[in-house]
Amino acid sequence: MIGKHKLELDTPCLVIDKSKLINNIEMMQKFAVSKSKHVRPHAKTHKCVEICQLQLDAGSIGISITKPVEAYELAKAKIRHLLITSPIVTKHKLATLAKILKLAPETMIVVDSKANLAQLDELGNELNLSINLLVDIDAGIGRTGASFDTAFDLAIAVHQHNQTTLKGIQCYAGHFQHILGHDERQQASAALLNKAGKLKQDIEQATGLINLIQSGSGTGTYEIDSDITSVTEIQPGSYTVMDKEYFDIEYSVSNSAGHFQPAMTLLTSVISANHSTHVTVDAGTKALYKEATHPQIISHENLNYEWHYFGDEHGKVSGDSLPSVGAVIEMIVPHCDPTINLHDKFYVVEDDIVVAVWDIALRGKLA
Amino acid sequence: MIGKHKLELDTPCLVIDKSKLINNIEMMQKFAVSKSKHVRPHAKTHKCVEICQLQLDAGSIGISITKPVEAYELAKAKIRHLLITSPIVTKHKLATLAKILKLAPETMIVVDSKANLAQLDELGNELNLSINLLVDIDAGIGRTGASFDTAFDLAIAVHQHNQTTLKGIQCYAGHFQHILGHDERQQASAALLNKAGKLKQDIEQATGLINLIQSGSGTGTYEIDSDITSVTEIQPGSYTVMDKEYFDIEYSVSNSAGHFQPAMTLLTSVISANHSTHVTVDAGTKALYKEATHPQIISHENLNYEWHYFGDEHGKVSGDSLPSVGAVIEMIVPHCDPTINLHDKFYVVEDDIVVAVWDIALRGKLA
Repeated sequence: MIGKHKLELDTPCLVIDKSKLINNIEMMQKFAVSKSKHVRPHAKTHKCVEICQLQLDAGSIGISITKPVEAYELAKAKIRHLLITSPIVTKHKLATLAKILKLAPETMIVVDSKANLAQLDELGNELNLSINLLVDIDAGIGRTGASFDTAFDLAIAVHQHNQTTLKGIQCYAGHFQHILGHDERQQASAALLNKAGKLKQDIEQATGLINLIQSGSGTGTYEIDSDITSVTEIQPGSYTVMDKEYFDIEYSVSNSAGHFQPAMTLLTSVISANHSTHVTVDAGTKALYKEATHPQIISHENLNYEWHYFGDEHGKVSGDSLPSVGAVIEMIVPHCDPTINLHDKFYVVEDDIVVAVWDIALRGKLA
Repeated sequence: MIGKHKLELDTPCLVIDKSKLINNIEMMQKFAVSKSKHVRPHAKTHKCVEICQLQLDAGSIGISITKPVEAYELAKAKIRHLLITSPIVTKHKLATLAKILKLAPETMIVVDSKANLAQLDELGNELNLSINLLVDIDAGIGRTGASFDTAFDLAIAVHQHNQTTLKGIQCYAGHFQHILGHDERQQASAALLNKAGKLKQDIEQATGLINLIQSGSGTGTYEIDSDITSVTEIQPGSYTVMDKEYFDIEYSVSNSAGHFQPAMTLLTSVISANHSTHVTVDAGTKALYKEATHPQIISHENLNYEWHYFGDEHGKVSGDSLPSVGAVIEMIVPHCDPTINLHDKFYVVEDDIVVAVWDIALRGKLA
């Protein structure tokens, strides 16, 4: 495929514009540096080793990732300074963590209960090392994390256990990332992260530890959170490639760093055109994750991808000046993470010519 | 993993109960035979070579599949008598079709326009063979297919072209499959398929061809459609493993063949339990496709998987008598096809012990 124009690719496929990707990565990095914050980008969005490497090359302090199997793939690919952002509790996942720690003992993981801490302390004992932990704080979603009421005690316990090292706290507010209005989002995130910062300060005072990490933040709140003094690092993911949902929220007008570029698009071909109202394309819900938000077609004016019943294999594109059978339609996807998770490869282009094909290597690493 | 109990598997993962799977396959086959119909099961559901082979072993006449890349994988795995159920129009997909026809010249494909017929005739000429075609009829979805008004002319044209052979028609009514009430579903499907049967008769009279194929039908209408005289073969897919959406529709009470068993389940582990109202599990929308219908938890009483905001990586399970961290929860998924499409493997069990691991080999064969 190398050397071909993107419109010559077989469809459906995901295309990444390399210069836009690098622009987004560098813009985030520069912004964070200007605010004296580290970036530990979340690889759950792109699941791609090559993009992790670009992020590290740009100055990221490490990589955040959700699951031990994903972290193990990254560790094998020599991606270091990993943070695993979800609790690791089962026998299988603890065994995977052991393999990761042998390759990359600096890896940090989160903990959200004393029972889980006991498991990790035991694993550290078996491995004869001290496991680096962040106490995960429930940001109010109720998903993972200790409550503010219990987090202090848990942090002290992490500090006191022999085989665990307290590195700080994580507080990630997934439910704030897509609040449309900038001011409302700012108010919610600042209140939460300042509260987490106060907790961190209490922990530092009680333990004598200094410079504990406060990690969290996504593409929706990275500007806001970078103004919170106690925050030391941010974990944005979607900014790399962007999507319709993140373009739809209001960023700070004073900060041009919010204007990331649509680095990733989905290409799909018209395969049937027997109607005056619409055509049928080859990207259904097996190639494009169904969301409340619609994709944004950028290759044709006045065309829309509809979410009507067109099944898992096909999509419905309606509008004026319908394209013919065989025509290729390019669109920004509604939500990048689950759509990327449906694909195996990124076709990477420069000036619309394919220069590389990158594996979405962490895709399918579910268990 | 062979020899382990299913509850010892790393999660999230898909488990297939082999005896239930075989029961479903044999039940469908016996029912169709009793109605003098062939079964050409649709592999878009399971995307798995081993299940295709079980279906062929049980007496299926061939396998239906959506895309040329998927058909090529099957042809390479020596699965024969394929029907590709979606039009093939792009240069890449026609090139893949050429590779398939060299391996499996008996393969049938659908056509829904004269422009597409010209492409296929040209390909047949290049390959020096006659390509077996079914004229795809638009069942009223407007997705693919020729209208009833144009299908007769198209069929005659297929018959008259040198390098294409008219084998019959396809009329698949995806939009009828999930109509809840049996009688309403019966009325809709019978009216459509009898109309298609009349069209087939007209084509037979005009061409002198006899015994043309009429293909179509899914798990929702297979009983109804098997009573339509003109239908020669059915293409059900979901019956193999079943899902919540197909269990929710009303089958004919007089026909016990409708009672397929839940052969596939999703296993997920509790990874956080800091709340009295719910726990967090490791199956989010990257392991379980989000639908209006909820999964059905079968391992625990009074527990529900909710579709609240718990992100791509996590699921929320609420209810009475909440399970502890590390507990494994088993559930029937809402819609089997797109959930299977998120996984790479089936863990196959007999009496809950793993006896095989099957690749979901067609997954990711998008383009």
